[in-house]
Amino acid sequence: MFIKELTTYFNFVKENINFGALFKSYNSMILDNLRTGKKLILASNSPRRQELLRGIGIDFITFVRDNIDESFSADIPTDKVAEFLAKKKADSYQDIIDENTVIITADTVVIYENEILNKPADKTDARRMLQLLSGKKHEVITGVCIKSKEKEMQFSATSVVYFDTLTNDEIEYYINTYKPYDKAGAYGIQEWIGYIGITKIEGSYFNVMGLPIHLIYKALKSF
Amino acid sequence: MFIKELTTYFNFVKENINFGALFKSYNSMILDNLRTGKKLILASNSPRRQELLRGIGIDFITFVRDNIDESFSADIPTDKVAEFLAKKKADSYQDIIDENTVIITADTVVIYENEILNKPADKTDARRMLQLLSGKKHEVITGVCIKSKEKEMQFSATSVVYFDTLTNDEIEYYINTYKPYDKAGAYGIQEWIGYIGITKIEGSYFNVMGLPIHLIYKALKSF
Repeated sequence: MFIKELTTYFNFVKENINFGALFKSYNSMILDNLRTGKKLILASNSPRRQELLRGIGIDFITFVRDNIDESFSADIPTDKVAEFLAKKKADSYQDIIDENTVIITADTVVIYENEILNKPADKTDARRMLQLLSGKKHEVITGVCIKSKEKEMQFSATSVVYFDTLTNDEIEYYINTYKPYDKAGAYGIQEWIGYIGITKIEGSYFNVMGLPIHLIYKALKSF
Repeated sequence: MFIKELTTYFNFVKENINFGALFKSYNSMILDNLRTGKKLILASNSPRRQELLRGIGIDFITFVRDNIDESFSADIPTDKVAEFLAKKKADSYQDIIDENTVIITADTVVIYENEILNKPADKTDARRMLQLLSGKKHEVITGVCIKSKEKEMQFSATSVVYFDTLTNDEIEYYINTYKPYDKAGAYGIQEWIGYIGITKIEGSYFNVMGLPIHLIYKALKSF
């Protein structure tokens, strides 16, 4: 089982990536330290995270294992959960990290009045979450772990998001059209509901989308 | 001259738009008042503004006149300039507004320590602006005017943007690669420099991109 997965991984890598060209030449003055043969792996299926990491001008591959344990103890303070889960995810890729690999994992949690809102189980749950968030502010925390054979860094960023009062029609329309079942808190800030319903944020917009990308850039510069 | 421009406009409209289908049926419960035959015109060439207005789920056409006078008196307080210019732009489309037309104009200004930063004249100017903004906060104000035959509304939103300290290499790389000469303040928040260099904002992200889209949605609902 493990061997099969590892073979799939190496075949994927071989077919998709020329490691020598991992870091684009136009970006040559920046992130120099990462250009010397390091392979960057983003362990996330989120197209938003992939878009954000591409946005800082480095190349990477994505590789994600199924069935990663994302449980956490109730003892962990809600504002530490994202970082805890990012580290837990990174640890579960330990076996594929060699001398030339850097892996990035992340976890985003939505917190409303100290309650973590996960991905909604169904339409009723999505409706409940959006009704909670309507007209109120909440926090979005993305935790990140960057890990190589020798080093490991964890950090997180918090953004406060303010929702306008949403009508039931708007909530129904959004859920039916965008089916936000893969999104913590049942919304994507970059989708219709974010355009019409979010009045302001305090913090990083990209952090709400899924990565505190300015912190990742900074971390990679000194990693 | 005027007749030629008007003919170009009507031909453009005829070729590109089925007015009966202006407002998408999937959005039928929302913005009902605007579905009864109104034609929405966005008078802006900005692809970002077009993307934002599309994002709230309504159809529109873009029509922009060249050589619109964007001058303003030095007596106008800096935080009122965006709204003043949006209204001035709208007034210059007065002659094409008929009973079924609603026109939207907008202007975005970047203000650093009470100085308005316009579009940079050249590379030196772009460099000067980014060096000013580096490591500091500034304000972005987008003013909007929505105008029909009978009605007119103006409003603006302010977002505060915090830049990390940028290195000279980062500033050079950004200017050379993204050529931000069409952007007030010499940067686009949705480009590389926004990913790596902006630590947080207070306000609407979309307002920094070019439209306070949540306010436009609200205004159109009651227009």
